[in-house]
Order: sequence, then C-alpha cells, then structure tokens
Amino acid sequence: MAHDDGAPERSAEIMAVLDALKKGLHDRNSEAVMALYAKDAVIYDLDPPLAQTPDEAHIALWLSSWGGPVTRTTRDVVIKFSGNTAVLHALTHTSAPMQDGEMAAWWMRTTMLIEKHDAGWLIAHEHNSVPFYMDGSSRAALDLAP
Amino acid sequence: MAHDDGAPERSAEIMAVLDALKKGLHDRNSEAVMALYAKDAVIYDLDPPLAQTPDEAHIALWLSSWGGPVTRTTRDVVIKFSGNTAVLHALTHTSAPMQDGEMAAWWMRTTMLIEKHDAGWLIAHEHNSVPFYMDGSSRAALDLAP
Repeated sequence: MAHDDGAPERSAEIMAVLDALKKGLHDRNSEAVMALYAKDAVIYDLDPPLAQTPDEAHIALWLSSWGGPVTRTTRDVVIKFSGNTAVLHALTHTSAPMQDGEMAAWWMRTTMLIEKHDAGWLIAHEHNSVPFYMDGSSRAALDLAP
Repeated sequence: MAHDDGAPERSAEIMAVLDALKKGLHDRNSEAVMALYAKDAVIYDLDPPLAQTPDEAHIALWLSSWGGPVTRTTRDVVIKFSGNTAVLHALTHTSAPMQDGEMAAWWMRTTMLIEKHDAGWLIAHEHNSVPFYMDGSSRAALDLAP
C-alpha cells in the first residue's frame, strides 16, 4: 500500500470502507453495501450501461443471484490522499458459489474516489472492469491473474 | 462538468491535459502521449494484462495499428480537485480508420488521477474500460452509447 503522506489513521479509515464493502458482499446485505455510496455516485461497473448510480434493488438482485457468500479480496492497493479526498486503486478478486453450487471467481480492476463527509467516508465514484481479448473474440478477460 | 470549488484555472489546466492527449492520439505521436503520464503511473486499460505501466513502444504499436488519425471526444466529464490532485471521470468516444479503411468506433469509460508536479499535471492513474454482456457470451460491450 502506498501513501502520499503516511497518514495511518486515514488509511485505516479507507481500509475500513473496503472491509465494510467486503462484509456487505459476504453477508449479501444490499442495505449495508448501499450505505457506503454517496447518493449521486457515478459507477462504471462490469455490466452495462456505461454509467450507473447506486441502486439498492440492483445490488440486491445481483447479490441474490449467487448461491452463497460473495467473497472479495484485494491486492496491489494504492491509496492517495489529498484533503478530504482519497483515491484508491487495486486488483480485486471475487469468488462466489453459483446457484448450482459451482464456484465462479475472477480478478478485476477497481478504482474508487472516496470523499469524507460529516457522516464519514463515502464512495463518490467507482470503476470496476476487466480487460477484453483483442484477438477478434472481444471476450471479457475473466481468467486473468495478477 | 462539475467542480468542487469552481476553480476555472485548474479546470482549464486539466482540460488542457485531455486536449493534449486527444492531439497526441490524433497525430499518432507516441512521444507526446507518453509525456502526459507519470513514469510510475498504473494503467488499467482495455487490453490485458490487468495492470500496465506507461510504455512508449506499446503506445506506438497501438497507434500504428490504425490506418489514420485516432479521434477522441469526451462527454459527462466530472473533475474534482483537492490540493494538487484532480480526479476526472468521463465517457470517452474513440474512432479511427482500420488499415482497410473501415471505421472503428466505441464508447468507453475513463477515470484518471492527475497530479500536479513541478513539470505540470501528470496522469498518475488511468482506468479505461467497457462493460461486458452478462448474457453468457461475456462479450465486451463495444456497441453501447450514452
């Protein structure tokens, strides 16, 4: 993890946001996930459309599509602070059982702009993606590992 | 375009970085494009691997793969400033002729962390992506429009 100014308290606060997201996904608790986002956050997610805003029904639908806990881990986390703003980017691994019990797992890239409000740190922008193969297939590269 | 603090000068400086990128792509000038990035920038791009660092040979190869100017436009640009840091996100349209003359064009999402150095503003992190269709095809959604 890299810091601009070595502020361990703020780093811990941002890692707490990530941990709360991991717990919300694991518990498939859409309300807990939703509470981490600013109401007007702009989200660029794995699925269309190009841009989305936080939508608890959408999160709940996605979480309920799995057969069990959604487990997320991160690596190569970089956090940069400036004032009440933090920018985080990381490689993110997600795994979860499908309804038939088979496990799905993939690495993606995550960038977040997290802003400090009176209520605490809220995600103002999130960008999740996988690259795609430029071999003519245009297939999403869901099988990459760092 | 949204601003946290309405600083028009800094906004103009960030738009100048975007304009320089557009000009570099249009002129297929890999040196000009490369000059916009911090040496240790972390780039999450459309193509694998998951994470890349700025590489002029890679940029030159990509630019030379086209049959003519690479034209980029942006919309829904949001820039947030904090100290010597700017975070920009936008929907980005790219079009360019392929070697056979046929035009390729697609919308993607772009997030940038841009930091002010003595030498000016440099891109410290860039994340470009398209979503993919979760219809079983896992096909990159290169045909979306905002």
